Amino acid sequence: MTDPDLTLLGHSENRLPASPEEAKLETFPNCRPGRKFWITLDCPEFSSLCPVTGQPDTAHIVIRYVPDESCVETKSLKFYLASFRNLPAFNEEVVNRILDDLVAAMNPQELHIEGKFGSRGGIQLTCSASHPNQ
Amino acid sequence: MTDPDLTLLGHSENRLPASPEEAKLETFPNCRPGRKFWITLDCPEFSSLCPVTGQPDTAHIVIRYVPDESCVETKSLKFYLASFRNLPAFNEEVVNRILDDLVAAMNPQELHIEGKFGSRGGIQLTCSASHPNQ
Amino acid sequence: MTDPDLTLLGHSENRLPASPEEAKLETFPNCRPGRKFWITLDCPEFSSLCPVTGQPDTAHIVIRYVPDESCVETKSLKFYLASFRNLPAFNEEVVNRILDDLVAAMNPQELHIEGKFGSRGGIQLTCSASHPNQ
Amino acid sequence: MTDPDLTLLGHSENRLPASPEEAKLETFPNCRPGRKFWITLDCPEFSSLCPVTGQPDTAHIVIRYVPDESCVETKSLKFYLASFRNLPAFNEEVVNRILDDLVAAMNPQELHIEGKFGSRGGIQLTCSASHPNQ
Amino acid sequence: MTDPDLTLLGHSENRLPASPEEAKLETFPNCRPGRKFWITLDCPEFSSLCPVTGQPDTAHIVIRYVPDESCVETKSLKFYLASFRNLPAFNEEVVNRILDDLVAAMNPQELHIEGKFGSRGGIQLTCSASHPNQ
Amino acid sequence: MTDPDLTLLGHSENRLPASPEEAKLETFPNCRPGRKFWITLDCPEFSSLCPVTGQPDTAHIVIRYVPDESCVETKSLKFYLASFRNLPAFNEEVVNRILDDLVAAMNPQELHIEGKFGSRGGIQLTCSASHPNQ
Amino acid sequence: MTDPDLTLLGHSENRLPASPEEAKLETFPNCRPGRKFWITLDCPEFSSLCPVTGQPDTAHIVIRYVPDESCVETKSLKFYLASFRNLPAFNEEVVNRILDDLVAAMNPQELHIEGKFGSRGGIQLTCSASHPNQ
Amino acid sequence: MTDPDLTLLGHSENRLPASPEEAKLETFPNCRPGRKFWITLDCPEFSSLCPVTGQPDTAHIVIRYVPDESCVETKSLKFYLASFRNLPAFNEEVVNRILDDLVAAMNPQELHIEGKFGSRGGIQLTCSASHPNQ
Amino acid sequence: MTDPDLTLLGHSENRLPASPEEAKLETFPNCRPGRKFWITLDCPEFSSLCPVTGQPDTAHIVIRYVPDESCVETKSLKFYLASFRNLPAFNEEVVNRILDDLVAAMNPQELHIEGKFGSRGGIQLTCSASHPNQ
Amino acid sequence: MTDPDLTLLGHSENRLPASPEEAKLETFPNCRPGRKFWITLDCPEFSSLCPVTGQPDTAHIVIRYVPDESCVETKSLKFYLASFRNLPAFNEEVVNRILDDLVAAMNPQELHIEGKFGSRGGIQLTCSASHPNQ
Ligand SMILES: [Ca+2]
Ligand SMILES: [Ca+2]
Ligand SMILES: [Ca+2]
Ligand SMILES: [Ca+2]
Ligand SMILES: [Ca+2]
Ligand SMILES: [Ca+2]
Ligand SMILES: [Ca+2]
Ligand SMILES: [Ca+2]
Ligand SMILES: [Ca+2]
Ligand SMILES: [Ca+2]
Ligand SMILES: [Ca+2]
Ligand SMILES: [Ca+2]
Ligand SMILES: [Ca+2]
Ligand SMILES: [Ca+2]
Ligand SMILES: [Ca+2]
Ligand SMILES: [Ca+2]
Repeated sequence: MTDPDLTLLGHSENRLPASPEEAKLETFPNCRPGRKFWITLDCPEFSSLCPVTGQPDTAHIVIRYVPDESCVETKSLKFYLASFRNLPAFNEEVVNRILDDLVAAMNPQELHIEGKFGSRGGIQLTCSASHPNQ
Repeated sequence: MTDPDLTLLGHSENRLPASPEEAKLETFPNCRPGRKFWITLDCPEFSSLCPVTGQPDTAHIVIRYVPDESCVETKSLKFYLASFRNLPAFNEEVVNRILDDLVAAMNPQELHIEGKFGSRGGIQLTCSASHPNQ
Repeated sequence: MTDPDLTLLGHSENRLPASPEEAKLETFPNCRPGRKFWITLDCPEFSSLCPVTGQPDTAHIVIRYVPDESCVETKSLKFYLASFRNLPAFNEEVVNRILDDLVAAMNPQELHIEGKFGSRGGIQLTCSASHPNQ
Repeated sequence: MTDPDLTLLGHSENRLPASPEEAKLETFPNCRPGRKFWITLDCPEFSSLCPVTGQPDTAHIVIRYVPDESCVETKSLKFYLASFRNLPAFNEEVVNRILDDLVAAMNPQELHIEGKFGSRGGIQLTCSASHPNQ
Repeated sequence: MTDPDLTLLGHSENRLPASPEEAKLETFPNCRPGRKFWITLDCPEFSSLCPVTGQPDTAHIVIRYVPDESCVETKSLKFYLASFRNLPAFNEEVVNRILDDLVAAMNPQELHIEGKFGSRGGIQLTCSASHPNQ
Repeated sequence: MTDPDLTLLGHSENRLPASPEEAKLETFPNCRPGRKFWITLDCPEFSSLCPVTGQPDTAHIVIRYVPDESCVETKSLKFYLASFRNLPAFNEEVVNRILDDLVAAMNPQELHIEGKFGSRGGIQLTCSASHPNQ
Repeated sequence: MTDPDLTLLGHSENRLPASPEEAKLETFPNCRPGRKFWITLDCPEFSSLCPVTGQPDTAHIVIRYVPDESCVETKSLKFYLASFRNLPAFNEEVVNRILDDLVAAMNPQELHIEGKFGSRGGIQLTCSASHPNQ
Repeated sequence: MTDPDLTLLGHSENRLPASPEEAKLETFPNCRPGRKFWITLDCPEFSSLCPVTGQPDTAHIVIRYVPDESCVETKSLKFYLASFRNLPAFNEEVVNRILDDLVAAMNPQELHIEGKFGSRGGIQLTCSASHPNQ
Repeated sequence: MTDPDLTLLGHSENRLPASPEEAKLETFPNCRPGRKFWITLDCPEFSSLCPVTGQPDTAHIVIRYVPDESCVETKSLKFYLASFRNLPAFNEEVVNRILDDLVAAMNPQELHIEGKFGSRGGIQLTCSASHPNQ
Repeated sequence: MTDPDLTLLGHSENRLPASPEEAKLETFPNCRPGRKFWITLDCPEFSSLCPVTGQPDTAHIVIRYVPDESCVETKSLKFYLASFRNLPAFNEEVVNRILDDLVAAMNPQELHIEGKFGSRGGIQLTCSASHPNQ
């Protein structure tokens, strides 16, 4: 039942991609392409860098989608998210870019991204974006 | 008030079925066939095998339905869910198959399945599917 | 402001009715008959018997309604719910019967019953039904 | 910025009004009369008397409204709610009367009252009513 | 690995014992008799009758013990607890009797019983007792 | 099994005592006088008056004790606590007086009283006292 | 990727502005101007002064908006919110003014402000307002 | 029962003291001077200024003590805590100073102060100090 | 910094061991052998078989220890725990065996095992055992 | 009141140190050197790299200490913790090294470090260590 496209599963050379451009979001065929169903991926360990101060920003990212022809493979997603680790990026850019990259990778029927960032200066920022645009 | 179709209730030869195909989802007649009402079955102890690594996957399955002519008998459901124990299956396949098998067994007016799987690699996956297709 | 129909309030001969048939759901006039408002009765101490094994089943019953001409008196409701104590009844039958009996007693504009039963064999069942039928 | 109509704020002769009739719900002008916005007043310390047994009943009252020309002043509201302290009143009467009195005092665009009363005999009653009637 | 003393496990004639005297607390040999370890049995579905009003009382019973030569078998414990269902007994008597009966049945090194009863008249009672007496 | 000293249980003339002096804390014999066990009475609906402003104060009172020869009867305790309703008393006096009155009524081996009062001016006060003095 | 308009980020002369008029809400260009997405700013440390008593009022402010051309910069928002610190203002005025000032600063497609103020006299007030007016 | 020393209770000229030196912690006689009992004062609305940046710091202060001859009056405590509002002070200094000032004001048998400060830079600081020194 | 003894880390042939005897608990050298420090391993996905009914039992296992010369490697622990999957074993036997096997594998200074098993028949069992014997 | 030793506070050149060796833990004098009091620093955003797979590990670090002559400055602590971001280190090594480095930097009377790491393979590891050695 394994998919020949899944090159990461079961491998160990797990070098961290240097940026989201270098990372590759792999997909596998949707097991019920005619049914509208939801997949939620809860990712509490996200981290990027503040583009102003260079300090780490952390976030809890939640991805929720209705697949069309394909689903994102979770190990490649883990590598993709880890590739933001040394990227300077504003919180809003992070969330919108994950949306854009996942749309490009799997063209889902619906996709929602929420990023809940760590509190800074007594203010905690959450950003959420959706596809298709509402 | 007991139903002659219920062959498992009150028996003890409880051998674990080897697969969902071998398991039998028994039903009993809906006590209020003309009323649209909801039954929720909360099953926190589900387990299957990862088809890539062979390791156990665990999930919290929630089944919610509006019965039509019949309801699923909960002891047969327990045996049915236990039959996934040694089955290699992707998370999405597990949820969609439970949906298909319960539709085949009791033809409900509405049915929703949610499976909340254990976290792997810092990502926790939840899959939910419904009948009829929305 | 006390209502002459309320024969239980303030009395002490509190014999447990032997069955729901023997119990009497008393009502009192709705204090605002022209207004659509909600009353919720949260009853966490319900108990009946499993019709197959004869063992106690417990449930948390929630009753929510919009009264029409009358409201159910809560002391008579307590006696009515206690009358299921030695009744063998399937979970779905319990919830639907409470719905039917409360409709017969007070003819509410809307009524919702939810019964959350104790876990059995690793599965926890909740049943909910409404009047009028949706 | 203080309002000349507010006779209670800043005073100390705080005698408890003997009944809701004696209490006075004061108001002050809405600071944004053309905007539809919400004010929620969470009052967990309400108490009245059971009209049958004479014993104290306690409740958590929540008031939620869209002001029109005026807002209720919270110190006068505190005195008004305290005036139920020695009033025998059924739970449903309490909630509906608070609704009627606040409508009379400030004629809001929308008003919702919820009263969550202490558990009696294993049953906990909540009553909620709204203006305008739905 | 099954124990010949366990006459209830795997049987179906599950008639509810009429009283704690009639119920039988079965035991099985402690698997590590020389080690001081703890077993906790969390029983949220207990019910007895109020000896004054005849109405049902419900409780959440927690049993915690260090076994000596034997452990209580949980199916017989379920039947034993269910045997209080139609017994009029004060809350304190219930908890102390469960303590005495479990000491008689298995002579544990330590035993703690806690019973958390349903709220009555705005007061919720919890009783806890231990063996050996402190 | 009922106790002849319990004059309140099963009665209906439930006039609220005007003060703690007028209220009567009734007791019944401890069912296990030789065993050191605990009874906890959780009373979330307490109310008295502020001696400075005359406004209601509310509190959540928790009583925890090891009985000696007698236990406090919970219905008389409910009447006793209700007798503070119109009494002007500082929070600390309330808690210490309940301690003194319960010691006088039942002479327990140990007794702990905690009163958690409603927030005033952004400060929430809790007072706890014990017998015997530590 | 830093914006030349952001004069506060990376600076240290952080003198508290004396009033909201003196504070400056800075903005930066929306990174996805054509997409409808949400930004939530959770600010639990707000404080102003009661205009009647002169005492501090505290609030938990939540700001939720869909940006149009620009987003509010969070460090300038922190200074803006801190500028209410010595301002006497009623709770409703605080919430409506934050709404007006943020509309003026960034002209968002949608904006919701909620302020949850500290409890006073046993009553806790929450105010919420939205743009555009509903 | 009011105490002539309490000059703040029932007054309205509530000008905020400019500093802790200017504020006055008033006391009233302990109602049970021979008994060791505890008073806890939960103060979630504390605020001071950061001595480095000049920005507001917020804290949740909890005061717990065993009174000796006197207790701190809560209205004077509220004014005392509000007097830190415009004081630049490190978190550790705040907590230790409250300890010193309360020891000077009422000479308690035991006193514990905990201050839980708002998160800064992803780190949340809590400081706690006690009298007498351990 | 990797340890040559760790044969599982970074490998993919992850066949499930058929029993605890077949599984191998690997260890690595304690990085601070002279310091008494604690390691807690929280394992919520444990499963074994009931020796009487053959049905799956699930448990949440918590392992807490002070290492001496060596620490248990978590990937080998995962395989070890998974090896109970098809083993019929009483709950008490499971917990005590894990204790014995971990003592044999790493000879820790202190070790505590807690297993919280799924509810059966309305009773939820937790077992905890420690080394050295107390 | 600012301390001349604090070179980071109020500065902006915030380059992330490349390793803990390069980072500098700054201190400031304890404001109450003769008193035994506690400071807790709750740091939920820690991240390092797994030395085997090279993937990010996240942790919630809690530091609790009794200062002697000096306290750790929180901004330098933030930089120090951020310096583990690209360091391959086992979980146990992380916790013990933070302990050692903080002992070296400020020589506290007592120090406790707890690190709660993200779940991997269904197992969540927590490590805690203390100074002086117990
Ligand atoms: Ca398609
Ligand atoms: Ca997937
Ligand atoms: Ca069923
Ligand atoms: Ca009608
Ligand atoms: Ca009613
Ligand atoms: Ca108002
Ligand atoms: Ca022995
Ligand atoms: Ca057992
Ligand atoms: Ca005695
Ligand atoms: Ca009692
Ligand atoms: Ca922003
Ligand atoms: Ca003295
Ligand atoms: Ca006081
Ligand atoms: Ca050694
Ligand atoms: Ca390890
Ligand atoms: Ca510090």
